[in-house]
Amino acid sequence: MIQMTLIQIDNYGPWTVTPKPRNESDLQILQAELFADVQRQFAAKKGLVFFTRFDNMLAITNGINKEDHFRIQRSIRNRYPITISMGVGTGKTPYIAQKLATESLQRKGGAQSAERKEILAIDSLVNEENSYVQVAHIDINGVTESLTDNMPAFDTNFIVNKAQHYLMTKLINKGSLLFFIGGDNFMSPCNGLPPQELTNIIEKINEEIGISHKVGIGRSNNAEDAAHLADLGLEIIRKENNNKIVHILEDEASKKIN
Amino acid sequence: MIQMTLIQIDNYGPWTVTPKPRNESDLQILQAELFADVQRQFAAKKGLVFFTRFDNMLAITNGINKEDHFRIQRSIRNRYPITISMGVGTGKTPYIAQKLATESLQRKGGAQSAERKEILAIDSLVNEENSYVQVAHIDINGVTESLTDNMPAFDTNFIVNKAQHYLMTKLINKGSLLFFIGGDNFMSPCNGLPPQELTNIIEKINEEIGISHKVGIGRSNNAEDAAHLADLGLEIIRKENNNKIVHILEDEASKKIN
Amino acid sequence: MIQMTLIQIDNYGPWTVTPKPRNESDLQILQAELFADVQRQFAAKKGLVFFTRFDNMLAITNGINKEDHFRIQRSIRNRYPITISMGVGTGKTPYIAQKLATESLQRKGGAQSAERKEILAIDSLVNEENSYVQVAHIDINGVTESLTDNMPAFDTNFIVNKAQHYLMTKLINKGSLLFFIGGDNFMSPCNGLPPQELTNIIEKINEEIGISHKVGIGRSNNAEDAAHLADLGLEIIRKENNNKIVHILEDEASKKIN
Amino acid sequence: MIQMTLIQIDNYGPWTVTPKPRNESDLQILQAELFADVQRQFAAKKGLVFFTRFDNMLAITNGINKEDHFRIQRSIRNRYPITISMGVGTGKTPYIAQKLATESLQRKGGAQSAERKEILAIDSLVNEENSYVQVAHIDINGVTESLTDNMPAFDTNFIVNKAQHYLMTKLINKGSLLFFIGGDNFMSPCNGLPPQELTNIIEKINEEIGISHKVGIGRSNNAEDAAHLADLGLEIIRKENNNKIVHILEDEASKKIN
Repeated sequence: MIQMTLIQIDNYGPWTVTPKPRNESDLQILQAELFADVQRQFAAKKGLVFFTRFDNMLAITNGINKEDHFRIQRSIRNRYPITISMGVGTGKTPYIAQKLATESLQRKGGAQSAERKEILAIDSLVNEENSYVQVAHIDINGVTESLTDNMPAFDTNFIVNKAQHYLMTKLINKGSLLFFIGGDNFMSPCNGLPPQELTNIIEKINEEIGISHKVGIGRSNNAEDAAHLADLGLEIIRKENNNKIVHILEDEASKKIN
Repeated sequence: MIQMTLIQIDNYGPWTVTPKPRNESDLQILQAELFADVQRQFAAKKGLVFFTRFDNMLAITNGINKEDHFRIQRSIRNRYPITISMGVGTGKTPYIAQKLATESLQRKGGAQSAERKEILAIDSLVNEENSYVQVAHIDINGVTESLTDNMPAFDTNFIVNKAQHYLMTKLINKGSLLFFIGGDNFMSPCNGLPPQELTNIIEKINEEIGISHKVGIGRSNNAEDAAHLADLGLEIIRKENNNKIVHILEDEASKKIN
Repeated sequence: MIQMTLIQIDNYGPWTVTPKPRNESDLQILQAELFADVQRQFAAKKGLVFFTRFDNMLAITNGINKEDHFRIQRSIRNRYPITISMGVGTGKTPYIAQKLATESLQRKGGAQSAERKEILAIDSLVNEENSYVQVAHIDINGVTESLTDNMPAFDTNFIVNKAQHYLMTKLINKGSLLFFIGGDNFMSPCNGLPPQELTNIIEKINEEIGISHKVGIGRSNNAEDAAHLADLGLEIIRKENNNKIVHILEDEASKKIN
Repeated sequence: MIQMTLIQIDNYGPWTVTPKPRNESDLQILQAELFADVQRQFAAKKGLVFFTRFDNMLAITNGINKEDHFRIQRSIRNRYPITISMGVGTGKTPYIAQKLATESLQRKGGAQSAERKEILAIDSLVNEENSYVQVAHIDINGVTESLTDNMPAFDTNFIVNKAQHYLMTKLINKGSLLFFIGGDNFMSPCNGLPPQELTNIIEKINEEIGISHKVGIGRSNNAEDAAHLADLGLEIIRKENNNKIVHILEDEASKKIN
């Protein structure tokens, strides 16, 4: 089971234009620092946060309990002009987990409700015995050589965004999520997705739009270790000259559970 | 003329996996804080940075000169484990400006060259008399009501990403760029794009994928003021119940130039 | 028993002037952000860091183990241009704990040795059964009314510094430490110091230099909760119009141990 | 003439205990990040901020005008849970400048007034022709060798604090200020102080408490360049084996004015 947390800034939209539109660069700094900040706090407990839409962030939070979430909310309230609400859910797939997390929070009121503030809505938490995280670190082959060093920066950005769109479209159907994590890198929480299906998706995208990827898959009982194993899997593919598409690594903790 | 700067982390890919893959949450924090940091420094001179791919960021930098760029590079060198190189270009459209900025930097070596470090490659700078910035602040109608408060968080994210993909695809053909700035918001540096063409694009996307947008356009001689006018334009549309698609505001500085 | 950690930037002095003196504002930002960062990470486990000399920071770290320390070192290495070494010690008084922490680290090499890097030198760790933290939150009576709002800012600063010097001088003889925490506030880790002796010190300083203080004392098995109880103690004195000098609060965890 | 700005958090004391005392580590992080942030923004215009008491900071701000100050206030309001007020003054000595800056702000209301908010109270600004900054970078001889690597960390801290207290006491009588800037380093804005008098002070302190210092003095028309010259002066003394106490460097800009 994977545990996911939805982190939502309370009543953010209205705040950004009250009393008049706030300076855009200030908002950009606020959003980036808030993301870095919650990342650091969840990471202290081996969680991993994705910036998603910045005002709504999704995180893998296996092993992180109610008090941990409360402390993060308190810390943000004390240092930012805004507050955050959170919903927590679990599932056999990341899609289900974030769906339950979202619904749990939605039941407490709307994102732009002036009344709803600092809600912590927990649908469910994984327990130690069935905590399981599978993530795929996906990167595009040859971006630096063929794109970054040869094409205008925005064209490279466009191609990376196109790859993201195609990956998202296909993964969401399998109950897997996809997040851009910078450069030419994506991370996909993908509990329940057989590696062969991921290989099929990668091959299909290559056929459709001519972009090829490689994928490291990591499995552990927490996000940090799963992501690290996924990174190591990617390194192995690189060292073997991209001869294969997917490499899987799992630790003892994950073997016991699956 | 718009001036754009490409900000590129030197040799970042190799660094992230040396001696072995670095902890993913640390990299996410590093990238977000670096973005917030250069944003704050460019913003001190009325520039505006987009996070783009994080290891490659694009910024509107009208009014920001060579020494300003140097000081930002120095500041990053003194506080981060990485360094940054920059290319600067100008053009009648943002696409041309970023293309010249990129080429100027590419001529000095590759992004993953161990030799190239802290390059400042200036193709050209706008002067005060012809400094002109047109930006569009585009947001999706009704996201909070129909999506955030009713659908799973990732589905909303998916739809926002889809809108981004369609907007990028159509705008790049017009020499305009598009950046996601959080929530359901995009910002498009769009010098040279007639408002009517933007309206056409918005209407076309609505037909194709059923997502409607509203657009504030701002014009000034610098990014900060242009973005602020674009924000005010959006507010006006909101107050008029989204009865129109585009609202344009321009200041005296921009009128003199265009 | 209190546990203290010495956090030392490796080879910092030489780094600040290599190849030539680095920009002073950059160094100030680096130091402040490093402090905020380690604070956030230790605080995630209920520790509390004092900025001390910035290149050498002292922290109360009861309940924080070897792996926690390692993870913080890794996180800093991945995001800063410098690395940190740490020494950890325990004692019946904070003075002894920091002395053992320092000696443990000193045995591994000098602070400006180019060879010594990212050392984690643990003399000892407190275990759960004997974890005990006593801290005093000391503030100066009437600073805002009589000083901040009436005297030049630097004169107020001078008086606060003078109070600090007198407090430090007297507390160190009792095995207690004293740290300035901003405003007119000091925090004193003071395991082993009877409240009556602290009252005597406060009265003596009032006689000698005419500065009066009030003191909240908190006792728990960790720094965060002890500091919070100390804050509450201060509030109680404030509500009773500063009629007494010291107010003590302790939680169940601390009662079991002492 | 030197220009100094007092930066004061509005109504901070009451905020820290409303509705009940806020978590101490959060306050420490808030204060350090606020300092780093205003430092970065003033530094973008060659100013230099000292953390002073954190809720009250003093800065050398020659060359920084009214709009610059406004923009920094706006930026803080948009990203922090608190706001800042500022007073600006100028003088032949830093003491006079900060005194006028403080008085200018005090006239607008108290630091803990719930009514006073985001005041910008400018007594005076230096103009380009008479902008002059003299700063001394003072450090303690042999701290790493004799203290950091041989004594408990808090004892070293105690000695550094003692040096600070003695330096402050003597400098304030000469119209000069003194700020601790980390490690064993102090910075003294000291317009109007003849170097010989500074030498006398250093010698006197050595006699009284056995602590010897060296001093680099820099002179320019702004804080950044003056501080850099002071750093270079210190380096020269170091290279000559601390054979002299004071070394002065000045740039062309400063020569024109004095």
